[in-house]
This record gives sequence, C-alpha cells and structure tokens, in this order.
Amino acid sequence: MRRRAPRPRSTTCCATKPLRGNLPEEPADPIPLAQALIRCRSVTPADGGALATMETALAPLGFRCTRLKYGEVDNLFARRGTEGPHLCYAGHTDVVPPGDEAAWKDNPFAAVIKDGVLYGRGACDMKGGIAAFVAGLSDFIAANPDHRGSISLLITGDEEGPSVDGTRRVLEWMAENGHTPDMCVVGEPTSKKQLGDTIKVGRRGSMNAFLTVKGRQGHSAYPQLADNPVHRLIRVLNALTSEPLDQGSQFFEASTLQVTGIQVDNTATNVIPAEAKAFLNIRFNDHHHSSALTDRIRAVLAEHAPEHELRVTVSGESFLTQPGPFVEALQRAVRRGTGLEAKLDTGGGTSDARFITHYCPVAELGAVGATLHQRDESAPVAELRTLAGLYRIVIEECLS
Amino acid sequence: MRRRAPRPRSTTCCATKPLRGNLPEEPADPIPLAQALIRCRSVTPADGGALATMETALAPLGFRCTRLKYGEVDNLFARRGTEGPHLCYAGHTDVVPPGDEAAWKDNPFAAVIKDGVLYGRGACDMKGGIAAFVAGLSDFIAANPDHRGSISLLITGDEEGPSVDGTRRVLEWMAENGHTPDMCVVGEPTSKKQLGDTIKVGRRGSMNAFLTVKGRQGHSAYPQLADNPVHRLIRVLNALTSEPLDQGSQFFEASTLQVTGIQVDNTATNVIPAEAKAFLNIRFNDHHHSSALTDRIRAVLAEHAPEHELRVTVSGESFLTQPGPFVEALQRAVRRGTGLEAKLDTGGGTSDARFITHYCPVAELGAVGATLHQRDESAPVAELRTLAGLYRIVIEECLS
Repeated sequence: MRRRAPRPRSTTCCATKPLRGNLPEEPADPIPLAQALIRCRSVTPADGGALATMETALAPLGFRCTRLKYGEVDNLFARRGTEGPHLCYAGHTDVVPPGDEAAWKDNPFAAVIKDGVLYGRGACDMKGGIAAFVAGLSDFIAANPDHRGSISLLITGDEEGPSVDGTRRVLEWMAENGHTPDMCVVGEPTSKKQLGDTIKVGRRGSMNAFLTVKGRQGHSAYPQLADNPVHRLIRVLNALTSEPLDQGSQFFEASTLQVTGIQVDNTATNVIPAEAKAFLNIRFNDHHHSSALTDRIRAVLAEHAPEHELRVTVSGESFLTQPGPFVEALQRAVRRGTGLEAKLDTGGGTSDARFITHYCPVAELGAVGATLHQRDESAPVAELRTLAGLYRIVIEECLS
Repeated sequence: MRRRAPRPRSTTCCATKPLRGNLPEEPADPIPLAQALIRCRSVTPADGGALATMETALAPLGFRCTRLKYGEVDNLFARRGTEGPHLCYAGHTDVVPPGDEAAWKDNPFAAVIKDGVLYGRGACDMKGGIAAFVAGLSDFIAANPDHRGSISLLITGDEEGPSVDGTRRVLEWMAENGHTPDMCVVGEPTSKKQLGDTIKVGRRGSMNAFLTVKGRQGHSAYPQLADNPVHRLIRVLNALTSEPLDQGSQFFEASTLQVTGIQVDNTATNVIPAEAKAFLNIRFNDHHHSSALTDRIRAVLAEHAPEHELRVTVSGESFLTQPGPFVEALQRAVRRGTGLEAKLDTGGGTSDARFITHYCPVAELGAVGATLHQRDESAPVAELRTLAGLYRIVIEECLS
C-alpha cells in the first residue's frame, strides 16, 4: 500500500515477506546492493532510483519505509519495530559529481569490480557503507528475529549538497512522529588506514566570515588625504591570525582560522582604493561557539577598522558525544569485529552528525575514506564484507 | 629653411624678423597664445599642431627651433643665443584626456573665456604657463635685446604619457649638441593657493613593487597539510606598513608606502589558495634610494615568505636642488613679481624635473594647480598675465 501526503510527499510500504527465522550459513553479501546503488546516478540532488533500491532491500526485512520529499530532495526513513532502545543508522545515497567521466578508468556509475576492488562514485562515500549496513542488518535479523528495541535507517539525498532539505528536515519529521532515536551511527567513511581504526565522536564547528573594510579613496602620493582600507585590513588579519585560537582540547585538535581570500578591486598603482575585503574560514572545537568567535572578529574590526561590514555564515557548531554506554558499545563492536582498538576522533570537516547530535548520542563509523570524492573512487570488496560483519556486531552491542 | 634628418627627425627654423629694440608700453598678453595652444587637440601622444604654434610664436623672438621626433612623440627645442649662462624653460604641450567631453560646461578644446577665466584642457597644466613664459620672454627681449647668456625652451609632447620619448630624449640630444643648460625652470602648475607661493626644488622618488607569495594549496579544514600564502603575505605587509619609512627630511615630507592592491584568486571558502599577490607604491624622500628600499622588501619577504617573486619598477629616484644662487634668484623673482615669500617644497608626484636634475639645477614654478587634470580645467586670465610678468622677472634675475 502506498499513501501520499502533499507536504512532505511521503510513501510508506510494509514488509510483505515473512522474516527469516534462521541465521544463514553464508553471511549476506553487501556487494550486489552496493553495485545497484552505484548504478543509480544520484549526484546531489538527483535520486536516480537509489531510494527505491533501498526500499526494495529493506521492505523484505520488515522495515516500514517512509519517503520524505522536501524541495528537490528525496529522503527515506525506514524503521523496524516501535520499541526502545531505538538505534538509527544515518547515511546518504547522494554523491559528489564525478568530474570528467572520461578521466576515470571505468565509468563512475558502472560499479565495475577489478582485482577484488569495487570502483565507482559512492563506492566509499557511502553507498558501499549503506550496503554493508543492510547486509549486516539482514544477518542480525536472521539470527535475532525478535530482537529487543528497534532499528531505523535515515537515508538522505542531500548530504553532499546544501544539507537543508535532507537529514535536518527528516529529523524534524522523526521527532514529530515519535521516531526520535536513542542513539545513532552515521556510516561516513571515517576509518583512516584500517577498517574500524577510528570512531568519530564529534566534529569541529565550521563558519565563514566575510569582512569588508571601508576607507577613503585617494592618490597614493597623498595618503594623508586618503584612508587606506588595505592597511586597516592588514592590521585586522594580522591580529586575527597571529595567535592560535587554542591548543586543542581533550578530544579535539586545535581550532584553526584561515584567510582563504582577499579582494581589492584596484589595479592602478597610484590609487588608494575605497574598500578591501577578506574571507575567513574557521574550524573550531568545543572551546568555542560561533557567536563568541563572531564577537571576537567584530572586536578586532572595531579596533583597526571602525568602518566595516561583517557577514558570518555558520555551517555547524562543534559537538562532542561524550564517552558513555553508546560509544563503549561501538568500541566493543570494533574490538570484536576487527580486533582493533578504535581511536575516538573529532577531526575533519562537517557531516550530518552535526544535526543528529541535537537529538541523541551520535558517532560515525564506516569504511576507509582514502578515495572519497576522488577520481576512481573505490572500496575493496573484502573491506565492505568485513564492514557488514562489523555493523551486525554494532547492532548486537547497541540493542543487547 | 627646414632640414630633415632621419632619426631624430628635426626641423630647424630661424628668426626672420628683427628683434624689437624697445620695451612695449603694454606688456605682452599670454592669452591669445594660450587659447591657440588649447585649441590644438594634443592629448598624449598627439601634437595637434601645438609645437608648430610654438614655433610660430618663438621664431619672431629670435629663437632657433629644432623639432625632435622620437617614436610617436613630437618635441621642440628652441634657443636664443649661444653663450652662457644658459637658462632653460621646460614644459609640455601634451594634455591628459578630457574624459567625457559632454560633461564639460564648454568644449574642452574651445578655450572659452567666461567671467575672466580661461577654460579648457591644458589651461592650467600647462599650456597657460607656456603662453605666460613666451609673453614674459617677449617683454624681456624687448627690453633687453642684447641680454647676457642665452634662453631656451624644451617643450615635449610626452609628459603626461610614458615619458620615454620626451624630455629624457631631448636632454640627451641637447647634451650631444652643446645645449646643456646651466639652470632650468619647469613650468608645471606648482603654486598652491596663490601664484608664486611655492617653488618646487625637488620631488620624492616613486616606485612600485609587485609581490607574489607562494604557499601550498589545501583544504581549509586541514591547514597543517597546506601552507597558506595569504597568512605569509599578511605578515609581510604588516611588517612593511607598521612602521613609517622615515619622519621626513629638511626639504621633504615623510616617505610613504601604500599597499594599493591584494589579489588572491580563490572564491572557495574551504580551499587554502596556492599564492597571494600584493601591489605596493612607495613615494620616497632623499633618505632613500630605490635599491635600498627593494632590499628592505626582499629582506621582509625572506623572513616571512621564503618562496616569493618580487618585481620592482622605479618611476624616478628622489632629487633635490639644494638652495643656492639659482633657487635664490627664483625666490627674489617671486618676491618682486608677487610680493610673496615662496615656500620651497618637494611634495606631490613626479615631473620631468626628475630627468633634468641630472644635467643642471632645476626648480618648478608655475600657475596655481587647483584644477589640473580635472573637468572644466581653467586658469584665471589675470593670473596668467601676472605669471607672464613673473616669468619676465625670473629671466632677468637668472641672466643678470
């Protein structure tokens, strides 16, 4: 049965097959689903059939699937069970553009396997990971058909894009409809060298600042009759960059402030320009909040360049999932599944975990990210199979 | 008689009328010649008939005229007499473009007189001044037909342009042909508020520096893997601009260093760019030479940005005509002609005096420069007539 509601447009389907009651002799293979997903041309915000492929895989496992379309973006929420504890797996089926497809060894959407490696856009980030979770899930359910709690998947088509009509909107819908999870694993490819070597338990915040410093135009031979905004901007930027923001914290690297651009529209060497602009990117740890950092920039501007404009955009505040039962369950799972001691890490850019942290403890655990966003993106077949087994154990540990 | 030589093409004419032996009852009027010159459309490097107009005015006064064409530029050297002391008057008949002619109250080349003011491109800079010198010269010769020494005019058509094929080349020709003067008055409109209030006895030097700082491109989330050239450039520019170059000298204002532009070709806020550029203009007094300033920039670059490129162009070194008999003669002339005590000054940009200083003492004395290079450029008729009288006295003082 399909039901449609006007806004968000949602489609709900239910499992039609009975659940398997016995553990299969061979573990479920993630590769066919990974290939099927890669073959969907789902460059943000296109879906390319990826979410229908997910529904086809999840419905037989007893998942109630809800399609949620916001703006141009297709999203899927699927849940098995209604009780707590509620473990959610969050991922995205959208991918970054392949760039020059002719420069790839194989078509980026062909999902070719060569020498035990699966190639294609999304193989690593993160269609391979989603397929591994579904395979592990399948084995978990086969062995534990009457498991405790419930399991859900939050799959968005807008993680690589503006991230406006994706995970954030689905979380709002989930909260409104009684689906707020108790814990969430994000399947981003966060492993560094070996599968399971890293669990991301937080991310630095990220913000951009756009500074415009005003002066008074004039002849460079008579600077006393002008007011050089470039000199004022130099003072501002020197003050902002000469001291580190901090030395890092228990789980975070040091915050960074980078001037990524300066713009002065003047090519005449005998003219002092009227204004000068600079662009800053700040990645900040749990010592900071974007509002305090904005205040700091404003104070430096006030000191060196009273006539100015400041525009700030915040991609996300920093967040940290404190060590506790959920993170410990993931660490136990990694130990059992790979023999490694996972390092708790907070490095890198942003992910949708920054939205999820407002609802429940969240951590990121997935494939090795060596080739993400690159040409000839790939994932070793054996790694995805190991990841499937690891995810099965993650579910066991979280729902035990 | 006209004689042509292939390079430089030169034309020599001699006075054909006898010199007037008596001082005229009315002083010669500079206005008709000023109007005739303004009506020549001599935007650099065009001549528009301006130098022929000068020849027509000078030949009757006993001047031997030589036209010197270098490249696209017409120049004129005219001399009366062959003995020393040799006083030269240097000026230019080229003008800067009028811009939007429709925005002028009157056509910029119509030389309209309204309410006692002569309007037109060059009225102030410096066709009005040249006409005043010729008028003063005419009166001087009328009163002193057998004057001591000799008088010359060096009139170029390339002062407002690249200044390559103008005064510099004529001076070389003059030196080669036994015409090196003993003193030179440049007729630039150097008076500030009242005619004669200022004699320029030097000019600051001017140079441009183009800095390129190299770094290593990277993701702004991982600055430790990159090397941000913008931050290096900020250090360089902060070091170069945080301390004044000097506090001025006896005859000079303080030197100035202005960052006129910064260029970073990067609009992505998550990217650290590979290089950053800055443009500097330096106006420097007699404490400095361009080579020492270049060394200073190079040292600061070496400290903060070892990977860099530096390109320097020098428009002119600073120069000073020390107080002495020539400058004193000009001061006496101003006192007699206007009643003012002329201030010795070295401010402003560059002029062709920077070339002449290599040959003889040089100073600049001319009209009030209030409207130079502006729309509706003008000179009061009375001021040009007073200037004619002042120039007559200048000649008397210099050749007495």
